[in-house]
Amino acid sequence: MTHLQHYLSENLEVPKESVTLCQESLKHIQVAKGTQLLQAGEICQYTYFVEKGLLRMFALDRNGKEHVIQFAPENWLISDRSSLYFNEKSKFYIDAVEDTEVLMLNSGFFTELSKLFPESADKIDLLLQKHIRNLQNRISSLLSETAEERYLNFLKMYPDIMQRVPLWMVASYLGITPESLSRVRKNLVKK
Amino acid sequence: MTHLQHYLSENLEVPKESVTLCQESLKHIQVAKGTQLLQAGEICQYTYFVEKGLLRMFALDRNGKEHVIQFAPENWLISDRSSLYFNEKSKFYIDAVEDTEVLMLNSGFFTELSKLFPESADKIDLLLQKHIRNLQNRISSLLSETAEERYLNFLKMYPDIMQRVPLWMVASYLGITPESLSRVRKNLVKK
Repeated sequence: MTHLQHYLSENLEVPKESVTLCQESLKHIQVAKGTQLLQAGEICQYTYFVEKGLLRMFALDRNGKEHVIQFAPENWLISDRSSLYFNEKSKFYIDAVEDTEVLMLNSGFFTELSKLFPESADKIDLLLQKHIRNLQNRISSLLSETAEERYLNFLKMYPDIMQRVPLWMVASYLGITPESLSRVRKNLVKK
Repeated sequence: MTHLQHYLSENLEVPKESVTLCQESLKHIQVAKGTQLLQAGEICQYTYFVEKGLLRMFALDRNGKEHVIQFAPENWLISDRSSLYFNEKSKFYIDAVEDTEVLMLNSGFFTELSKLFPESADKIDLLLQKHIRNLQNRISSLLSETAEERYLNFLKMYPDIMQRVPLWMVASYLGITPESLSRVRKNLVKK
């Protein structure tokens, strides 16, 4: 069974065959570390589901510095919704931080699913609400939390990413300098 | 016609009577400037639609400093979805920055609406996607934009708020100090 089947049956309570039924809206790809799946200026055509590996979405500022918007390890969905749903050119990049096995869901995937399993529609809505909750918490965290609080929340959200990516990339996600992150980690060890 | 009727017929393409049909899920209230509609620790029960006036949602940090998460002038919806949809204690406050006329929509409002007008369900979904787009852009802005870029985007999103609230409150929304905001505004005048 794929992770996606498990994810859908867990979160949307649809039977495992649902993935097979919707497979026309689905593409299975294998991408090498460093591959870009989306570049700024393009229209994002897919939601990416990570079967194995690690993707991230980031923005580049005017000085060419990367700012990580989201990490997507196994069982995460990642996409630029502004671009996918409103047909706008994306401001973001999505790339593979590790060799990654990805399922590409086109924009019709969830519509098709909720047509086949009408009782899943509310659950799909709940997934959106969960996503909104995460984004709202992230904004609140960026505005009001100390570097240490941000880091501790990061560890809760992404328990193993710290071991999988360079420190500067986590610092970029947290909106702090790598030096601050090192300091925070040292202080936590002392506590 | 209320702003809400206009908003719904515009965004969801439902007839203007829809508000009357759903009025059991709706409460009309008048709140004085400074009134708190939600406090941290409570469960958020409503989505607030602003007919006239101005609401805001904010977080308090451990030092008692306020951080503005969102402003809601006329025609905006504001709510803590984490709390409303997942029955969690809110981490946020919602209060009235001006004397405000508010429609309180309970959590069943949009469900009822989409039952009465099934063709509005996709449009309600699109509203959620728009909200997600805004949140995503806000995160990207907080991580990667300069104070000036943030301020210019703020003016696009909220053309008249600058005239309606004290400067420190806008600075708090932007995640910069009031001094930085003053500097940014002075530099823009010179340009």
